[in-house]
Amino acid sequence: MSTFNIDDYISQLSIDCVIFGFKDKELKVLVSELTYGDNLWSLPGGYILKTESVDAAAARILKRSTGLDNIYLEQFRVFGDENRILQSKYKENIKQGLLQLNDKRFDEKTIAWMANRFVCIGYYALVDINKVNPKPGEFGASIEWRNIDDLPNLTHDHDTIVSYGLKALRQILDEKLIGFNLLPKTFTMKEVKELYEAVHDTSFPMNNFQKKILELNVLERLGKKFTGAQNRAPFLYRFKEN
Amino acid sequence: MSTFNIDDYISQLSIDCVIFGFKDKELKVLVSELTYGDNLWSLPGGYILKTESVDAAAARILKRSTGLDNIYLEQFRVFGDENRILQSKYKENIKQGLLQLNDKRFDEKTIAWMANRFVCIGYYALVDINKVNPKPGEFGASIEWRNIDDLPNLTHDHDTIVSYGLKALRQILDEKLIGFNLLPKTFTMKEVKELYEAVHDTSFPMNNFQKKILELNVLERLGKKFTGAQNRAPFLYRFKEN
Repeated sequence: MSTFNIDDYISQLSIDCVIFGFKDKELKVLVSELTYGDNLWSLPGGYILKTESVDAAAARILKRSTGLDNIYLEQFRVFGDENRILQSKYKENIKQGLLQLNDKRFDEKTIAWMANRFVCIGYYALVDINKVNPKPGEFGASIEWRNIDDLPNLTHDHDTIVSYGLKALRQILDEKLIGFNLLPKTFTMKEVKELYEAVHDTSFPMNNFQKKILELNVLERLGKKFTGAQNRAPFLYRFKEN
Repeated sequence: MSTFNIDDYISQLSIDCVIFGFKDKELKVLVSELTYGDNLWSLPGGYILKTESVDAAAARILKRSTGLDNIYLEQFRVFGDENRILQSKYKENIKQGLLQLNDKRFDEKTIAWMANRFVCIGYYALVDINKVNPKPGEFGASIEWRNIDDLPNLTHDHDTIVSYGLKALRQILDEKLIGFNLLPKTFTMKEVKELYEAVHDTSFPMNNFQKKILELNVLERLGKKFTGAQNRAPFLYRFKEN
């Protein structure tokens, strides 16, 4: 295991990722239970090497957490409140928790560095939940998918980060239906509708919905999906090639 | 003049502001000529105090540059490429330029800090050009409004920052017509159209345009603007109260 050297990283600047997946008609977010703290959870996150771009750092963190490369990943907001950690109840928790861990990788100076104020850049990612092999980061005891309506006790302002991430996902879906990784390779209009309904937490009438989606002009209609009840077989769609 | 103390600021994190104004049917951006460098210009920018939020830092920089408080100001993107300064031709320029300035406020250590890699948070602001009293920052020899199509030689990746700022302005105008400071208190539909045309760098047919704008439901129609030619007097509008 490599030793963490604070001199390799930009100080006071971090990344947190809202990683979205879609399964069983539910929108899910990947969250990690922290090794320190009592039932305290976190978004997958990390720091930025002095020698790498912010986007590359986000891709690295995403890969570490999911095992996936080349994933749709987009920054959506900076969380820069001066009190988001510094004056919160978590600051001492972090220090104490990390000190108690007695982890050889982190000396006192490193722990003080980590418990400092951090400005956070929020990224969201859309992943195929079936392809993900979730793995906790440096401070994660475990990592799991949680329904967006059933998130555990999140550290710092991670609740707020999830809210803004969801807002960004809604916007990108409405504008461009960039939901490739959230849907299988081919899918029915009903499945697209179920995705939208999970993301928007509301239901849409099918006729209007289908009309709106087809107007976006990003889907290609394939043959019918035969399931036995032939007269009701729905069309299959896939995303057009770029 | 106060001394600049690098220990007061977050290192490697900066803010640059794309400050938009609208006058004579032209979209304008506030740019500052740097005291160092040869005809090298910059967006108004600065650093973030360890004790202030990122938004407060942006508001402080905006006030310093324009004299204005309570201005519509929104972050739109992080510019985090590892080479945006470090490996560019400007790094040595900055160091040399600052050293040559022989400015008592900045010792060698401070100059090395300033010439380091910085991740930049881009903010855009919409201001009433008639109310602005532009003032250059620490490194500005002068500051002036320039047409967005006629910007001078900008330092670092400030061209890219302006492009993304313009994209964000287009989006916010299309969605919500948040253009209050870019238009006078009351205005005609023709003036709104001129603003849109300057921002989008294209022309719109009046009938469609008026229909689209009125559908946004953010304008209140007042009386007619009488100018003598009574039969052609246009209606005046203003923004609805929130």
